[in-house]
Amino acid sequence: MARVVVDVMPKPEILDPQGQAVAGALPRLGFEGVRGVRQGKHFELDVDDTVDDESLERMAATLLANPVIEDWRITRVPVSARGEGA
Amino acid sequence: MARVVVDVMPKPEILDPQGQAVAGALPRLGFEGVRGVRQGKHFELDVDDTVDDESLERMAATLLANPVIEDWRITRVPVSARGEGA
Repeated sequence: MARVVVDVMPKPEILDPQGQAVAGALPRLGFEGVRGVRQGKHFELDVDDTVDDESLERMAATLLANPVIEDWRITRVPVSARGEGA
Repeated sequence: MARVVVDVMPKPEILDPQGQAVAGALPRLGFEGVRGVRQGKHFELDVDDTVDDESLERMAATLLANPVIEDWRITRVPVSARGEGA
């Protein structure tokens, strides 16, 4: 079993209203110094060791992201680096 | 200027219908071997170097995540590691 992370972000040339909303709200909440925010999706997949990188790439392009407006980054996470509240 | 990534995920004990929908769709699309999917949010912030970790933690707890149902992880990204098509 392997842990795979897929981060999906709007392409740089695509408007990101969610990120803009966050960027606009931060100063109103008293947080200064944030110059830009972009928001995307973060997927954590537990996959069998038989799942290869090419399959992961096709999963991302088919279901997790919209290739027309989004970029993605696939990362295999070592078990020792998961570090999420365990 | 620094790049900060904040990944926000539903707590393990919280139902994640988005992740479950993805997990259910993958086999129908012909992708086998995925045992579990959880979906969260991925934020990329460009912040001034004056913004400290304590401020970032408060931003996450106040605006980016709902501490009742979500966990988050804050990561400062070295410029050389951004690697997003630049």
